[in-house]
Amino acid sequence: MKAEMFIGASAVVGTNGHVSGVNPATGETLEPPFGGATLADADRAAALADAAFDAYRETAPEARAVFLETIADNILAIGDALIERAMAETGLPRARLEGERGRTMGQLRLFADIVRDGGYLGLRVDPAMPERQPLPRSDLRLRHIPLGPVVVFGASNFPLAFSVAGGDTASALAAGCPVIVKAHSAHPGTSALVGRAVRDAVAACGLPEGVFSMIFDSGRAAGQALVADPRVKAVGFTGSRGGGLALVAIAQARPEPIPVYAEMSSINPVILLPQALEERAEAIGKGFVASLTLGAGQFCTNPGLVIAVEGPALDRFVASTAEALGMVPAATMLTPGIHAAYARGAAATADNPAVEVAARGQGGGGCAGQAAFFTTSAAAFLKDRSLQEEMFGAASLLVRCADADELAAVVASLEGQLTAALHLADGDHDAVRALLPLLERKAGRILVNGFGTGVEVSHAMVHGGPFPSTSDARTTSVGGLAIQRFLRPVCYQDMPDALLPDALKAANPLGFDRLVNGKR
Amino acid sequence: MKAEMFIGASAVVGTNGHVSGVNPATGETLEPPFGGATLADADRAAALADAAFDAYRETAPEARAVFLETIADNILAIGDALIERAMAETGLPRARLEGERGRTMGQLRLFADIVRDGGYLGLRVDPAMPERQPLPRSDLRLRHIPLGPVVVFGASNFPLAFSVAGGDTASALAAGCPVIVKAHSAHPGTSALVGRAVRDAVAACGLPEGVFSMIFDSGRAAGQALVADPRVKAVGFTGSRGGGLALVAIAQARPEPIPVYAEMSSINPVILLPQALEERAEAIGKGFVASLTLGAGQFCTNPGLVIAVEGPALDRFVASTAEALGMVPAATMLTPGIHAAYARGAAATADNPAVEVAARGQGGGGCAGQAAFFTTSAAAFLKDRSLQEEMFGAASLLVRCADADELAAVVASLEGQLTAALHLADGDHDAVRALLPLLERKAGRILVNGFGTGVEVSHAMVHGGPFPSTSDARTTSVGGLAIQRFLRPVCYQDMPDALLPDALKAANPLGFDRLVNGKR
Repeated sequence: MKAEMFIGASAVVGTNGHVSGVNPATGETLEPPFGGATLADADRAAALADAAFDAYRETAPEARAVFLETIADNILAIGDALIERAMAETGLPRARLEGERGRTMGQLRLFADIVRDGGYLGLRVDPAMPERQPLPRSDLRLRHIPLGPVVVFGASNFPLAFSVAGGDTASALAAGCPVIVKAHSAHPGTSALVGRAVRDAVAACGLPEGVFSMIFDSGRAAGQALVADPRVKAVGFTGSRGGGLALVAIAQARPEPIPVYAEMSSINPVILLPQALEERAEAIGKGFVASLTLGAGQFCTNPGLVIAVEGPALDRFVASTAEALGMVPAATMLTPGIHAAYARGAAATADNPAVEVAARGQGGGGCAGQAAFFTTSAAAFLKDRSLQEEMFGAASLLVRCADADELAAVVASLEGQLTAALHLADGDHDAVRALLPLLERKAGRILVNGFGTGVEVSHAMVHGGPFPSTSDARTTSVGGLAIQRFLRPVCYQDMPDALLPDALKAANPLGFDRLVNGKR
Repeated sequence: MKAEMFIGASAVVGTNGHVSGVNPATGETLEPPFGGATLADADRAAALADAAFDAYRETAPEARAVFLETIADNILAIGDALIERAMAETGLPRARLEGERGRTMGQLRLFADIVRDGGYLGLRVDPAMPERQPLPRSDLRLRHIPLGPVVVFGASNFPLAFSVAGGDTASALAAGCPVIVKAHSAHPGTSALVGRAVRDAVAACGLPEGVFSMIFDSGRAAGQALVADPRVKAVGFTGSRGGGLALVAIAQARPEPIPVYAEMSSINPVILLPQALEERAEAIGKGFVASLTLGAGQFCTNPGLVIAVEGPALDRFVASTAEALGMVPAATMLTPGIHAAYARGAAATADNPAVEVAARGQGGGGCAGQAAFFTTSAAAFLKDRSLQEEMFGAASLLVRCADADELAAVVASLEGQLTAALHLADGDHDAVRALLPLLERKAGRILVNGFGTGVEVSHAMVHGGPFPSTSDARTTSVGGLAIQRFLRPVCYQDMPDALLPDALKAANPLGFDRLVNGKR
């Protein structure tokens, strides 16, 4: 494979250091090394993106939709080489990566449908009222336009679905924003393959080359320079809290601050209601272990916290969890760095005098993460904020509460979360009604009798939540609504029809839904 | 009149210093002095707002709409005392303030309609697909919920429409957010009258008292404490760039950063196209002077910059403007401080060696602002960024360009703006087509053959724009879309119907529009 990055149409071998993939299962450094971008490379990518913006943002809906679909087709056309490279670079199994490829393609196609539908433009028309007293009303027409070039920092844990052509890229391109991807250093070969697929789709669709670029960064300078570049108008990021907040700080310190959509940390509380525990403690425990250990626990929505009222039913849940967890083999984690951080975090929790180790998964060597299940008291949890810190991996902490009031206090003490899960039975409805207002304040998605892992890509999904789960609670990074992050409203007043964009012309040539005087 | 502020239902006389209205026409200090809030007052307002939030945000649409309409009715019921107090505190004439009262009431009623319509909730339903292969799909339902308590800093220049019960307050209340107003110190008596009207509407509608509070601040501590308060979740502000950025900095430094919607500075370029100048230079000049001097130039959308290509037609525009401006009497400005800042800014521009004074309005004493019209060359304008600084008042600068390219360069050099106006004739369409992409990047509203003053309150209005015209280009502070600033999405997955909010129940008891599988 070629060690290329893409500055617009040009395949470039970076000259500023390099990044290499590492097979986490074997420790083997993978060939080839991928040369990193210079600041001049980053500058050129930003210049091309800026130059492409005005043409790209006015592409006809069908043309833009076909472009997104072409990316999906091109990714599939890479064939097994993509799956094998991703397996080698991430340690994730074939079935997971094939599924993730399907998800990535489905995501691009969902946004193609959204572009064709036009609803995302939020079109509004308030026609002129020349006879109105005491003053006539002007003709007012509103559409949303894209913000401008977007820089995307891919995630390590979704090398396809939240990386080079993942959710941030797909939604930004759908909105009409050129995209510059800073490829994640943990899967450079996977990134190069997908980057080429996107670059080829740009060319095949006759779009300006600056619609897409992808760079490697051997340090942090090139990526940070892009966030600071005045031609860049928004940032998408999935990763750690530290990484996300560093980008937010750069974006806010610019002469013109820009939005950063950083999806950061979340421990995704799971609340077990008494009646549900009574009826099916064992089944919940089994489901919990399956969710906790999925993908070696490397999900943003991994259930890192369980909250319940003490009693024999909760003991049955713990026993069931311990039994299931004891059978779970250690699982290879994405990178040596992630494994080391997980091992440190789990060890610190285990060493906390207020914490007991309730169960462990099977051990393993190298980058294999050992699952862990801890318990603590509500009093200890409320006292020690460090127990709320995410352990990225298959570790979770049960907080034992004395009663419903203490459970509510624990929920109230939580930081913002991507998800909150409730396990409930009919007899728990009143207790849940009391908790829901609190959960709505805390989480972007509230789910019942399930776990947050498994994020459907659809119109009604929210993968977002109050700080620090994301840097902007008003948004989602997964699902159709994600496109709204990259848009802003513009109003045209008394503009001659010939000068109006098609979406707002009197004859509505695109046939899009429009709100006329506030009515559909 | 009583010197009261309102901490929830309680009328309180502040004990932390005081603020007094000053009649800018006479210099007279108006009675009574209004006591300022202590930090304890601010804390109590935040506590009440937080306590009211969960109940208020789940009010039925009709109840919330009636509440907004009751505020409008109560403001009208204050009667002439409100108009007279506002005249005394602002120097604005009766007709303007009566019009502004109507606008304020219209705004509240528009949001009542929006609340009844329910479209702002952005409801989405993706029903379960239990048979889907390879994995079933969960039932997913999305609504937008309000962010939480909002602090509003009213504007000096709209003592009714963008103050205590103005656009920020109306849209936040409509969204379901309790509001705490930091009353503008320039019109405390007007604020107290309107604050009481809102307070009484809260009580009449049987809502929790914390839905509304209003404080005076003799310094900055109470207002800043509210922005920093963890129970406050968003801020609305209209005022200076310095003031807005100070609040943004506080909001971003919080452990949980929150959005600040600051509408700050804009010079609202007016671009005169050649054919339009040829056909009607004189009429454009007259219209320009009327817009420039409206309300002593104290509008966010005041036309502070004119850009055109040199030639005899532009000279005719200048002559027409000079003639009309020479007849404009000096007009009382809102406060001595605003007048002083305006006089300083206009003098600095006049003293700039690259600037010529093309015309002045009539002089006056005290707080009366003398209108001014300056000219400079494109080369000088491009070199000296200080010429882009807003002079809040009736002053404007004409930038004479050599040709269309230089005009485009001047437009490209501009910071973000609330509005951009184009004066054009049929023969100018091609030139405008070339400029529009640039203008869309720069401004939130692009208007033709008119001026930005006069901001319609309707569904398609955008009163917003790229930084520094606002702190968040993705939003508007005027018009129906303003409600979106105070909302965030929440997804409910597999939630039993009995536990779902009414807007998302299977039977759709509220009858609201919902996007089902992405289709309306």
